[in-house]
Amino acid sequence: MKVVKFGGSSLATGANLNQIFQIVTADPERKIVVVSAPGKRFKEDAKVTDLLIDLATKALLEEDTTVLFEQIIARYQEIAEQTGTDASIVEQIRSDLKRRIDSDKANPDLFMDLIKASGEDNNAKLVAAFFTGKGIPAQYVNPKEAGLIVTDEHANAQVLSESYAKLHQLRNADQLVIFPGFFGYTNSGQISTFSRSGSDISGAILANAVNADLYENFTDVDAVFTVNPGFVKHPLEISELTYREMRELAYAGFSIFHEEALIPAFQAGIPVHIKNTNNPDSRGTKIVRKRECSAGPVVGIASDSGFSRIYISKYLMNREIGFGRRVLSILEKNGLTFEHMPSGIDDLTLILRGNQLNPTLETRVAEALKRELGADDVAIEHDISLVMIVGESMRHSIGTTHRASRALAEAGVNIEMINQGSSEVSIMFGIKKDFEKTAIQALYQEFFAE
Amino acid sequence: MKVVKFGGSSLATGANLNQIFQIVTADPERKIVVVSAPGKRFKEDAKVTDLLIDLATKALLEEDTTVLFEQIIARYQEIAEQTGTDASIVEQIRSDLKRRIDSDKANPDLFMDLIKASGEDNNAKLVAAFFTGKGIPAQYVNPKEAGLIVTDEHANAQVLSESYAKLHQLRNADQLVIFPGFFGYTNSGQISTFSRSGSDISGAILANAVNADLYENFTDVDAVFTVNPGFVKHPLEISELTYREMRELAYAGFSIFHEEALIPAFQAGIPVHIKNTNNPDSRGTKIVRKRECSAGPVVGIASDSGFSRIYISKYLMNREIGFGRRVLSILEKNGLTFEHMPSGIDDLTLILRGNQLNPTLETRVAEALKRELGADDVAIEHDISLVMIVGESMRHSIGTTHRASRALAEAGVNIEMINQGSSEVSIMFGIKKDFEKTAIQALYQEFFAE
Repeated sequence: MKVVKFGGSSLATGANLNQIFQIVTADPERKIVVVSAPGKRFKEDAKVTDLLIDLATKALLEEDTTVLFEQIIARYQEIAEQTGTDASIVEQIRSDLKRRIDSDKANPDLFMDLIKASGEDNNAKLVAAFFTGKGIPAQYVNPKEAGLIVTDEHANAQVLSESYAKLHQLRNADQLVIFPGFFGYTNSGQISTFSRSGSDISGAILANAVNADLYENFTDVDAVFTVNPGFVKHPLEISELTYREMRELAYAGFSIFHEEALIPAFQAGIPVHIKNTNNPDSRGTKIVRKRECSAGPVVGIASDSGFSRIYISKYLMNREIGFGRRVLSILEKNGLTFEHMPSGIDDLTLILRGNQLNPTLETRVAEALKRELGADDVAIEHDISLVMIVGESMRHSIGTTHRASRALAEAGVNIEMINQGSSEVSIMFGIKKDFEKTAIQALYQEFFAE
Repeated sequence: MKVVKFGGSSLATGANLNQIFQIVTADPERKIVVVSAPGKRFKEDAKVTDLLIDLATKALLEEDTTVLFEQIIARYQEIAEQTGTDASIVEQIRSDLKRRIDSDKANPDLFMDLIKASGEDNNAKLVAAFFTGKGIPAQYVNPKEAGLIVTDEHANAQVLSESYAKLHQLRNADQLVIFPGFFGYTNSGQISTFSRSGSDISGAILANAVNADLYENFTDVDAVFTVNPGFVKHPLEISELTYREMRELAYAGFSIFHEEALIPAFQAGIPVHIKNTNNPDSRGTKIVRKRECSAGPVVGIASDSGFSRIYISKYLMNREIGFGRRVLSILEKNGLTFEHMPSGIDDLTLILRGNQLNPTLETRVAEALKRELGADDVAIEHDISLVMIVGESMRHSIGTTHRASRALAEAGVNIEMINQGSSEVSIMFGIKKDFEKTAIQALYQEFFAE
């Protein structure tokens, strides 16, 4: 059997729902459908989830919510009307959202999650009514009843392992299951949401729980591209990549699929197929445990900007036992997490996400490093981009570094940092942000253009 | 004025002493001479320091020391005879060493240092008598009287900063100063030695203290080579390099000059000139603060084997605050120091000196990493070599990485690790030890052979 997940852009209009009806009914193995909240109908449109966040915020501030409330209900109503679905479902949704908005606000995080989660929850009810109305009996399944138990870390919930055995029962459902994504329930029965775009996670958990043959993730692009189309026009598509490759690409800006969602699929070895709702016949991209590495060593190129670096030098640093550990302790005390730590003989550099820093904090950290560690020099620099080339077969392919660094050198890109040697599937280059586009284009040319 | 230091191989025979006499008297600025203990006269010969270590060991074990004692005295006697120096100095040395060997052995480290230091101390007396006998009045200066105060960390003493002001008075000596290298005195008046080859350190401290114009370090090679002559025949010599370059080269196996000795020179900005006692007219190698970078980006290539790596992977590792710090704490608890820590997204690798490890310790560390950090995988691998290309102008020279990695790729050397981005003056490659020679040759060919 297959678990199928549809993203918000596949659920924004009645026309979208007719498309997913075609997709689901085209394959009798598609027995569990996970849905997001309705997304954008057009570029400037608002996603229902964003409207719900506004709604919750207004309610918490005790502002008037009437207009926004109606605007949200209108989204469901429009879809119901466009698809000829029984109008009673819209009334159900209205009273559900009313009940939520009137509920206790003592814990704002919990209230926010309660409102946010209604987007998926009510959409699942609507989609179930729609399928049933079209003659395919479908049942909305509530995550609490199904047993999707999560931690109470609101907006960043983690699934608890006991969920899987209970959720396994969904295999035996006699109707098509329509399951709302994005949230579960805590052991005390409260709603708790995954991080944003967490419907991908719900789908992966269900695929794992029911031991699906395939987890199909329908979105609005034909495939994962080898490189960000913002940098290279019409880049090649990736037909197949491994979990590890996907994970590394996701780290540096490939946001097509929620990276946490890979875990449950990875653990059960269930392949993930990313496909386009609007073009279901396209090949898509399959994420698997192992793949044939017949093409070149590189499967994709990713990049992310917004990194900063803290450079620390001290003469004879490498004689000092515990120096690195003490540097990291100072970072931790200041609430900073680091990404990488290249080191020389008498210096080390911390690469971290720049959005954690501000001038006051930078001064404090620099002073602590000098005072507590006796560093000779501490320098902080911003606007570093990390560029990664990713591929399973890279490790055993002599000369990949050479090809990448030649391409960068010929394009006039100075390499500030190379991090190679831990990951078996990637090489990471640190460059100045101004060179990011040039670097990506040069690497694409080198590894994909022939 | 100049401080001149002679290594053991420049002080092994009477002929050597006649050579250093020529060198010292050829330049009236050479006013302070730092001496090592007599070194080897021929390849299979023993250094006096090694004989002294044997002597101290025997004495501590209460074995008979008579033969060894006479063997050591014979070394001074031979030099005195060969140079026609007054025989009374040998009797002085004999009674000094006798007094030392008979002294208190309650603290074996202190006793060992007392015996070891006699090599330099007595040789300084001999050399002073030799110069005086040849008509150049020279005074043996005792480090205690001169004020060279050090920590009591025996065999790894560190100079205390108060030494400098007192030692500065040596500028005013009216005779040639002959100063024994390798040791100083603790605040409580006990001898404490620097690490092995520490006469280089004594010379650098004096050069700093008297604010010398130059610190001349005479040894038995013409210059520092661009690469280990064991790997490449007749490599080019380095005429000038910076302190930082020397420090990086010294890290990875360039042992021509004690790296700690650079610190006092570096702090005072005093150039260090490495020259050949047996060929004083050769250009030698000058270590300076700044140099003209007119040649290629690389000034030298170094390598060192005997590294190991610990690979740790954990899915979503980079989400865990403090993960790196906790890894380093586990290392520290097990008495391990690490050299480098390249990291991927979900893994990190520690590069450390392999001689710290043994199978029991490896098992313990691997288990601690799995148990305390929940690591998915921990793997330990040995026989890694680090190869470094070093040069100040590398940083601003686009394409150095490319040239190096091309050279390695074309030689069939797989790069296991690259560490670039912290040090401004080096790029480090981790490779399997079996490839070390091939890698060095390929890099030499690339950067020096044209």
